[in-house]
Amino acid sequence: MSQFDITHKDAAGRIGKLTTPHGVVETPTVMPVINPNIQTIKPSEMKEFGAEILITNSYIIYRKDELREKALKDGLHALLDYDGPIMTDSGSFQLSVYGEVEVTNEEIIDFQQRIGTDIGVPLDIPTHPDVTYEKAKEDMDITIERLKEARGLVKEGGMLLAGPVQGATYKDLREECARELSDVGFDVYPFGAVVPLMESYRYADLVDVIASAKKGLDPVAPVHLFGAGHPMMFALAVALGCDLFDSAAYALYAKDRRYITARGTYHVDKLKHLPCSCPVCMAHTAEELKKAHNCTELLARHNLYVTFEEMREVKQSIWEGNLLELVEQRCRSHPRMLEALKQMTNYSSWLEECDPSSKSTFFYCGPESAKRPEVLRFNKQLERLTIKGSVLIRAYPTKKDKEYDTVMMFKPPFGSYPQDLAEVYPFNAEVVRTPDYEALEIAYKNTIKLVEMNPEATYTFFMKESFEHPLVEKLDVMDNVTVVPPKSN
Amino acid sequence: MSQFDITHKDAAGRIGKLTTPHGVVETPTVMPVINPNIQTIKPSEMKEFGAEILITNSYIIYRKDELREKALKDGLHALLDYDGPIMTDSGSFQLSVYGEVEVTNEEIIDFQQRIGTDIGVPLDIPTHPDVTYEKAKEDMDITIERLKEARGLVKEGGMLLAGPVQGATYKDLREECARELSDVGFDVYPFGAVVPLMESYRYADLVDVIASAKKGLDPVAPVHLFGAGHPMMFALAVALGCDLFDSAAYALYAKDRRYITARGTYHVDKLKHLPCSCPVCMAHTAEELKKAHNCTELLARHNLYVTFEEMREVKQSIWEGNLLELVEQRCRSHPRMLEALKQMTNYSSWLEECDPSSKSTFFYCGPESAKRPEVLRFNKQLERLTIKGSVLIRAYPTKKDKEYDTVMMFKPPFGSYPQDLAEVYPFNAEVVRTPDYEALEIAYKNTIKLVEMNPEATYTFFMKESFEHPLVEKLDVMDNVTVVPPKSN
Repeated sequence: MSQFDITHKDAAGRIGKLTTPHGVVETPTVMPVINPNIQTIKPSEMKEFGAEILITNSYIIYRKDELREKALKDGLHALLDYDGPIMTDSGSFQLSVYGEVEVTNEEIIDFQQRIGTDIGVPLDIPTHPDVTYEKAKEDMDITIERLKEARGLVKEGGMLLAGPVQGATYKDLREECARELSDVGFDVYPFGAVVPLMESYRYADLVDVIASAKKGLDPVAPVHLFGAGHPMMFALAVALGCDLFDSAAYALYAKDRRYITARGTYHVDKLKHLPCSCPVCMAHTAEELKKAHNCTELLARHNLYVTFEEMREVKQSIWEGNLLELVEQRCRSHPRMLEALKQMTNYSSWLEECDPSSKSTFFYCGPESAKRPEVLRFNKQLERLTIKGSVLIRAYPTKKDKEYDTVMMFKPPFGSYPQDLAEVYPFNAEVVRTPDYEALEIAYKNTIKLVEMNPEATYTFFMKESFEHPLVEKLDVMDNVTVVPPKSN
Repeated sequence: MSQFDITHKDAAGRIGKLTTPHGVVETPTVMPVINPNIQTIKPSEMKEFGAEILITNSYIIYRKDELREKALKDGLHALLDYDGPIMTDSGSFQLSVYGEVEVTNEEIIDFQQRIGTDIGVPLDIPTHPDVTYEKAKEDMDITIERLKEARGLVKEGGMLLAGPVQGATYKDLREECARELSDVGFDVYPFGAVVPLMESYRYADLVDVIASAKKGLDPVAPVHLFGAGHPMMFALAVALGCDLFDSAAYALYAKDRRYITARGTYHVDKLKHLPCSCPVCMAHTAEELKKAHNCTELLARHNLYVTFEEMREVKQSIWEGNLLELVEQRCRSHPRMLEALKQMTNYSSWLEECDPSSKSTFFYCGPESAKRPEVLRFNKQLERLTIKGSVLIRAYPTKKDKEYDTVMMFKPPFGSYPQDLAEVYPFNAEVVRTPDYEALEIAYKNTIKLVEMNPEATYTFFMKESFEHPLVEKLDVMDNVTVVPPKSN
């Protein structure tokens, strides 16, 4: 298997080092897609943008005599004039678009090995999201067969072999497929056929696909979100455990005169100001960019700069331990992204298992923060907390601490926690004075759980006005709880 | 009075053109602060970063023989080697720090005029936020006296005169001060002494100060948020109606080895990756930047690039009509910023009066979106809506439309609106499938209001499962309302 070393973690995201025949790649990273026929930006320039690995299509090379012969004679790296790692796709994309390809799985695997690809891909079947379960299963079974065949053809120690996980939007199929491929053993696991989901803004479904497939894999396996290249979703996908991305978007969007940002996409003709400081945007005004004879190339360059900029932002966030804060910010770029964030909170239990237990200060960003892994972890930890005697739970400082056996703090979204944890992660969180409904709901539910688990103790809760919530009444009617109403002011 | 032409609006934010003796400035913009003694970046380079106007301190020039003589002889513009507009401060800052200055109001106004300042500032009294009401009022009265004196000293047609609004954190004083100054008539209205609020992350208080002072001014008066230069809060402050900012931060932060981003500030020694594509960050790795002999200068340059980048982002958002979406994203940078966003929703009624009635698609970003001016406007419009007969209110498409006299759509956070408005702003909003509690609350309150205002009609509400909320019951018990429970699936 490949060497993939994880050095830092945050949520299910990680900084990793993937060793390939042509060098080590630090992940997460995005692979610029190189079209062997038309190169908007030359492969030899890609390192300047921040690229550590490229991806191109072996099937296009295979099909064109001139390219094939040069690739077979001088190798893929000479063909592209690039000396770093290169991944190649297999023709699966063409298969998904045209319904057939003029190559077999065995032929394309052989070809990729002969031209010196660093990461090769078998001819899997990218199944469209909206097919029936039966069709998805049938495609998946063929994919698994072909991948097993490919595994037999590629000897370990040379080309890394990718094992694409398919299964459409059926969560059980994605997980099953991942598990079966995991048993065979591949070097990189692309999650395939997700482009139609992204094209139709089905980011919540994308979250399901990623989380399901991840559950079927060894947590340390490197994952490639195949076809994902818009920086808007990097933070989200990395937080769910994706390591590699590929971007044809930088060039395709440029062809459509579209200008990418981490917040979304602008049509260049609608730009009055360029919200970027990249070399292209510092050298041109919006008007100049629109009218430039090489506008497509300039846009492709800008698009690539911001793509790598966002990846650096994501990596820095993992280092700092505030990737989830970045995710919550980025997911405000579009309501469909916000849905994806909400969907991600459904996987908090899984994320909690991956997540480091101490990080940078927890920043409350909205109702979704109340469902972060750290909050869920505290809910579980409550089961190990034993409390006796008289307990003061206070939402603000008072001078009555000494009158009680135990003093607990109350801070949404966590709830009640021992005073001596106040400066400890995550209870040292920065939160808002007026919590959202959902944050209060979880805080009170956790407090009710605490009381229920320690029924011998008696509790006095000093609440704050901004902490009013229907659940306060539920707390108040408990026999051993006294709620002291907020100071009126 | 100055010529200030507003060309585009969004929320209380606007694109404006301020005419000064040395040229027209497009607002919103930030004025880099030039220290006449130490120039980390030369004034002559400032246009490359995007600067349209600089600010420096006339008191520092006045106090230093060499600078004073050159300024009096050759003029301020020659002294700084900059031919565009320059604003000068008066020594008020030094007054606030040292308690006294060696110049009178009259002297410094005279000096500013003689050296050819474009926008001059009287010697006002910057009152610290936490003084008593009496002290704030006393300071304010002196400030107003001095500003009246200054107004008498500056003839119209030459130097523009700024009238700083003081009043600490007392909303009535800020509003009163603004109103009195408005009656006198100044060319630019700085909101003064807000730096201590920003230094202690009291952004919610800053919102109060800005909104109160704005209420006392003519809406078309240009406003300068004095001392505000961190890009994190530009979107928020612009949305509240601020036009000019000044940044000493770019250089001061650099001196402390701090790296600014629109999401917050990093200490450069904690950076592993540079999340930016500016010329500095493209030419250096994080390691190289840290170790550079000219690290302070490089950081100052980076800080200035991202400062102007964010201002371009803000301006583009006003053009596009999605400034409030940008505000909601940026306010997730820190929980104190989120508090400021929540505070801003308390001023929605005022914002609604400023806000254009049709803009780019409304994007739901979180509970605060439910309190946006557009939602409030719909609540008011409900009063003009007359409905009779049988009404279908539906949260999803059904085939029963024809069985009713009137069909209304239900979409949180708006509530129920006539079907023929479905594609009209703001009802064509992009929202989330699972609304936050606050969004549902407002939608149901608006629906209850609609029913109460049209008691003769009968209503059938087809609700969705994800729209469950305590207020559904309140709707259901109304005599003329039938709630059809969600389809179970």
